[in-house]
Amino acid sequence: MSNLYVALTHYPVVDKRGDIITSAVTNLDLHDIARAVKTYGVKAYYVVTPLVDQQALVQKIISHWTRGSGAVYNPARRSALELIKIKDTIADVIGDIQDIENDSPKTVVTCARRNAASTGYKEFREILKSGEPHLLVFGTAWGLAESFIAEADFILDPIMGPTDYNHLAVRTAAGIILDRLLGE
Amino acid sequence: MSNLYVALTHYPVVDKRGDIITSAVTNLDLHDIARAVKTYGVKAYYVVTPLVDQQALVQKIISHWTRGSGAVYNPARRSALELIKIKDTIADVIGDIQDIENDSPKTVVTCARRNAASTGYKEFREILKSGEPHLLVFGTAWGLAESFIAEADFILDPIMGPTDYNHLAVRTAAGIILDRLLGE
Repeated sequence: MSNLYVALTHYPVVDKRGDIITSAVTNLDLHDIARAVKTYGVKAYYVVTPLVDQQALVQKIISHWTRGSGAVYNPARRSALELIKIKDTIADVIGDIQDIENDSPKTVVTCARRNAASTGYKEFREILKSGEPHLLVFGTAWGLAESFIAEADFILDPIMGPTDYNHLAVRTAAGIILDRLLGE
Repeated sequence: MSNLYVALTHYPVVDKRGDIITSAVTNLDLHDIARAVKTYGVKAYYVVTPLVDQQALVQKIISHWTRGSGAVYNPARRSALELIKIKDTIADVIGDIQDIENDSPKTVVTCARRNAASTGYKEFREILKSGEPHLLVFGTAWGLAESFIAEADFILDPIMGPTDYNHLAVRTAAGIILDRLLGE
C-alpha cells in the first residue's frame, strides 16, 4: 500500500478571472473523491476550508453517512467518508501528517496547464514506491493559486486525452490521477 | 480520433436489493461525464431515460449551459454539454448511431463485479483502433441490470485499485475508463 494522502482545498484557489478566492464546498466532491481515495488505498482525505460554516456543513454530511441513517442504508459509503478529515489550512494538514508519520510529507500538485518542471505519471508512480509520505493537493474552482503551485515539491503533468480540451471536474481528475498512480 | 460513443442509462438499472428500477437523473452526471467525453474525443454522450419529466429536466440543464447565461459565463462548459443527446432507450441510441455511421455499433458495458468473459483495458484499447463504432454504456444507481450486461458485445474488467473496495461513483468510473482507453 502507498503512503499517499489527498487534500481538496477551497483556499487559496482562483476564480475564472484569476483572482484568489475561497470557494464553497460541493457535496459530491466529498463523496466521489472519498470513494476514489478508498478504492486506491490512500491513507486520508483532507477537506480544507478556513470557513467555519463550511466546515460545519462538511461535518454534517460526513456524520449523516458515518453515524446517521446513511450509515445503515449504505455501509460502503460510510467506509469511504470515514477517511475525511476537516482542516483550516494546508499547513494544518501537513502538521497532521507529520504527527502520524514522524516525517514531513512532500507536496504534489496538479495543474491543468503545461509546466516546464512537471513530472510524468510513470515517474511519480515509481517515486511513490519509496514509501515516503506524499500529500497530493487538488484545488476547487478554477484551480490552485499560482503561488501555491510554485511552492510544491512536485507538479504533475496535466491530464490530457487526444484533444486540447482540459476542463475535467476535479472529482474526475482526482479519480484519473489516482488510477494512473496506484491503479492495477 | 476514436469512433466511440458513450451512454449513461437510468433504465434498466438495479437498486441496492437488485430490483430493476428507473433511477433519477443526477445533475453532475451530465456535467462531469460530458467534460470527460469532450476531453477524450468521444463522438456523443447519450443520456437515456424513458421518463418524460426527467428528459425535460436534462434539456433544461443543457439549455442553460448551451444557450442561456451559462453559455456566456463558461464557454468550456457549453462545448462539453453540447455533446449530450437525450434518448428514451438504448435501442434508440443504437438507431441514432446506425444513422450516423451506416453501421451498427458494438456495445460495451462495465461491471463492478469480476466476470469470466470480461475484456482488459489494453486489449479493448487495441480493438478501438479498428475505427469501428462502439457504444460504451454506463449504468446509474447500483449498476446495469444483469440481463442487459449479458447481451453486450464486450464486458470490461472492473476498475480496481490495490484494495478490494469497488464502489466508485459512475462519474469517476467513466473518467477512469475513458483515460485507460483513450488517454495519452
